[in-house]
Amino acid sequence: MATPTVAIVGLGQIGGSFAAALTKRRLARVIGVTRRPETARRALRMKILAEAGTDLDAIRGADVVVLATPVRTLLRQIPEVAPLVRRDAILTDVGSTKTEIVEALRCSKTRATIVAGHPMAGNERAGLDGCDERVFENRPWVLIGDRRKAAVLERLVAGVGARPTWMKSPRDHDLKVARVSHIPYLLAYALMGTAEDAVRVCGNSFRDATRVAASDADMVLDFLLTNAGPIRRSAAELKDRLDALLRRIERGDAAGLRKNLLRARVRRSRI
Amino acid sequence: MATPTVAIVGLGQIGGSFAAALTKRRLARVIGVTRRPETARRALRMKILAEAGTDLDAIRGADVVVLATPVRTLLRQIPEVAPLVRRDAILTDVGSTKTEIVEALRCSKTRATIVAGHPMAGNERAGLDGCDERVFENRPWVLIGDRRKAAVLERLVAGVGARPTWMKSPRDHDLKVARVSHIPYLLAYALMGTAEDAVRVCGNSFRDATRVAASDADMVLDFLLTNAGPIRRSAAELKDRLDALLRRIERGDAAGLRKNLLRARVRRSRI
Repeated sequence: MATPTVAIVGLGQIGGSFAAALTKRRLARVIGVTRRPETARRALRMKILAEAGTDLDAIRGADVVVLATPVRTLLRQIPEVAPLVRRDAILTDVGSTKTEIVEALRCSKTRATIVAGHPMAGNERAGLDGCDERVFENRPWVLIGDRRKAAVLERLVAGVGARPTWMKSPRDHDLKVARVSHIPYLLAYALMGTAEDAVRVCGNSFRDATRVAASDADMVLDFLLTNAGPIRRSAAELKDRLDALLRRIERGDAAGLRKNLLRARVRRSRI
Repeated sequence: MATPTVAIVGLGQIGGSFAAALTKRRLARVIGVTRRPETARRALRMKILAEAGTDLDAIRGADVVVLATPVRTLLRQIPEVAPLVRRDAILTDVGSTKTEIVEALRCSKTRATIVAGHPMAGNERAGLDGCDERVFENRPWVLIGDRRKAAVLERLVAGVGARPTWMKSPRDHDLKVARVSHIPYLLAYALMGTAEDAVRVCGNSFRDATRVAASDADMVLDFLLTNAGPIRRSAAELKDRLDALLRRIERGDAAGLRKNLLRARVRRSRI
């Protein structure tokens, strides 16, 4: 099979890392499109892709188009970008929430095959500073769409070391990530707010639980502001669980609490 | 100054690690007292102390007595142990909550100088398996009591690499640790409860926030069950902060949220 051409729109941490991983492993010929000419030049100097520029027309020749700008930017870009994608190409994205993006892609009337994506990977450095061709290794890369038509994309995802993880719908994805990602972020911010001067005696539990509060604020705003419904539901679930634990502490229910703790311990040790 | 004799009652992770740190750095002659003869023999084989046995009478000769059994065991032991401590000795402990312990020590009518302690250090391995003479390095070691009478103890605490951190009262300590330790533990358990099958796509935020759910359950029960009041208050504070963030997400208040996120980011980066 011929090497596919992959166009990546947006050369931030994830777009840049995917470009680097595909290029270094010779899995694809990568074209990068970015708003700022400096970013294109920098990506070329880093040798993480074959071509880079600021003109969206470059995506017309690609077999796979990856939208990798921040979610709220992407939502604005879709009406302009989607019509340029070839009919026989795959149009995917790497946004961390899916319902709004998939809706926008569907409304765009693109004729390409839509396969929404979300690599569950990343680090705390923004932009090309965070470029790391190994960042996807052993991490889930969620895919949503018609799997039979997505063989090329699935091969590339597996090729960079990620675990292609198919989910049935954008809503299913958004509720799951609210539970295992967005809520931990919100708790980190809430903890930073309540800690006040106690932080000087904080232990590892606090350090671990608040680490993500050091993340790039705009990246976090992107998923918080485009996933309000699932976040509301997950937060209510979390508060219910917390209240149940608090009630057992109030009652001094050692046996009941021990059961909760041991069950969590077993489940945590499997991660 | 002569090398002080330190008696440590309870050779678990913290008692054993303190024994090892004092012995290896030749800061004290360490006597260990433990319930199980096998533990005493094991500690002697590990060369982390000078003497070890099961007889509490051994603490009569010590300049500093460190109570290092689990909190709820300790609460039961205090009436028996405290009267054995010499009048001119310092009686301290390493329990992770302080109000109930200090009350029990005061009720014991010991004539020794009471200096309650809490090294904010530890790892996930229970008992002597977790023994690590470097575990205190650069970690706060909270002390509560009359500092002028505690010079010997403060020197030992600093000697093993910890940062002696004086607090004004057991209540002050218990509220601070509820905020920066007990609440993160409870959130970890609550998160494990809500995650269900979504854990297969969990990212670093979830891994970090739930790491402590793998801790020894009895150690956790010890501080949860002896700190109900401060935990209740801290949980209410946390829920208020969380609700404020959720309201901003619902309203799509990007500017307000960004302010919250940036403030947390700055404070987190200082830890």
